[in-house]
Amino acid sequence: MKRALKKAVILLSGGLDSTTTLAIAKSRGFDCFALTFRYGQRHSIEQKSAKKIAKFFGGKQLVVDVNPAVFQHSALTDKSIKVPMGRKIDSSKIPVTYVPARNTLFLSYALALAESIGAFDIFIGVNSTDYSGYPDCRPEYIKAYEKMANLATAASVQKKGKYKIHTPIIKMTKSQIIKTGVKLGVNYSLTHSCYNPDKKGIACGKCDSCQLRLKGFAEAKLKDPVKYANK
Amino acid sequence: MKRALKKAVILLSGGLDSTTTLAIAKSRGFDCFALTFRYGQRHSIEQKSAKKIAKFFGGKQLVVDVNPAVFQHSALTDKSIKVPMGRKIDSSKIPVTYVPARNTLFLSYALALAESIGAFDIFIGVNSTDYSGYPDCRPEYIKAYEKMANLATAASVQKKGKYKIHTPIIKMTKSQIIKTGVKLGVNYSLTHSCYNPDKKGIACGKCDSCQLRLKGFAEAKLKDPVKYANK
Repeated sequence: MKRALKKAVILLSGGLDSTTTLAIAKSRGFDCFALTFRYGQRHSIEQKSAKKIAKFFGGKQLVVDVNPAVFQHSALTDKSIKVPMGRKIDSSKIPVTYVPARNTLFLSYALALAESIGAFDIFIGVNSTDYSGYPDCRPEYIKAYEKMANLATAASVQKKGKYKIHTPIIKMTKSQIIKTGVKLGVNYSLTHSCYNPDKKGIACGKCDSCQLRLKGFAEAKLKDPVKYANK
Repeated sequence: MKRALKKAVILLSGGLDSTTTLAIAKSRGFDCFALTFRYGQRHSIEQKSAKKIAKFFGGKQLVVDVNPAVFQHSALTDKSIKVPMGRKIDSSKIPVTYVPARNTLFLSYALALAESIGAFDIFIGVNSTDYSGYPDCRPEYIKAYEKMANLATAASVQKKGKYKIHTPIIKMTKSQIIKTGVKLGVNYSLTHSCYNPDKKGIACGKCDSCQLRLKGFAEAKLKDPVKYANK
């Protein structure tokens, strides 16, 4: 009899990091459930990418709506705040693209879904090397979340298992992430990273997210397959 | 010039515990924002109570929809699972009315809303004395959540403030909670506690939640103003 694969929940935005994280989870033998959020984000085009990616990896996907009223004063959700373009990224300062407690809310959905489906493994594509300085991408935050999760849930308290928040790319540079993904067969043309795409979904090439992505492809000596404006 | 009140977010289900918690937050001088969830709960009638209670206390209220796909295998969300009726409550065992990671998800919405509106105080009406044995009602869980919250958020990392999860009724007996609420002017006829109300919203009197409530009113030597079936 074939042994059932272990289930895992993977936060999938449709960007480069979460897609690589999904590929890593698959490569580790997990039966992957992708979890994607609609929260009134400026770059809602990323949801289309997430859908294609989930399909590409043959996995299940749940798309959840989050009331944007809880995500205020961020350039990603409030169109009156400009996305910084062409700035020198300083990850010691938290930029205006920070979304209040976003990873905490997303991980909490993942935790509830994991307990619902009998999974103990949650994957999140946070990165604290080539990143914008968001506090909820740091290892100490993830560790504290994991500790809380194991006190929160019936399945852990009843010792059916221990929740693990996997952060396989947290210490990688962007070029290492891309090289890892390429090895695992990721089709990066399906991904979307730009915070400020035009109406057709074409990436700006200048926001933090585009800059980090382009730097990563350059360092990996690979061509980014997505289109950029004015290129 | 009148000094602005400190803002707080209060999780408000419409039950006895969360209503008393709201009254306590008001009495401590907070400008209260109530946060209520629709998650496909069997006792959705509690939302009507929450609305009336939020209005009664003159506060603001946000009602958020949570996709019930993340809350599986609970008697509160899955109508094929029976709500235990007339059982002897044993809080050392987690009952089938437990909802996966519910307080974690609700607190995470509260945290995001708090950061969005510039609040650092979150109130939750968890109780670990007269309770059903849910892991996410225990002091050690709340402490771990608070620690995580202060690592997660820009406002805390930037030292604008420290998030505090207030649990004013966590150590009270149900009768102490009721007596406290009565002193603070709570109109308990507005509240709804029953997990298994009939179609008219009349409480069953036999589920854990009704039992704990009735015991509390009896010990407080007060009459519960809500209607019960067969009484």
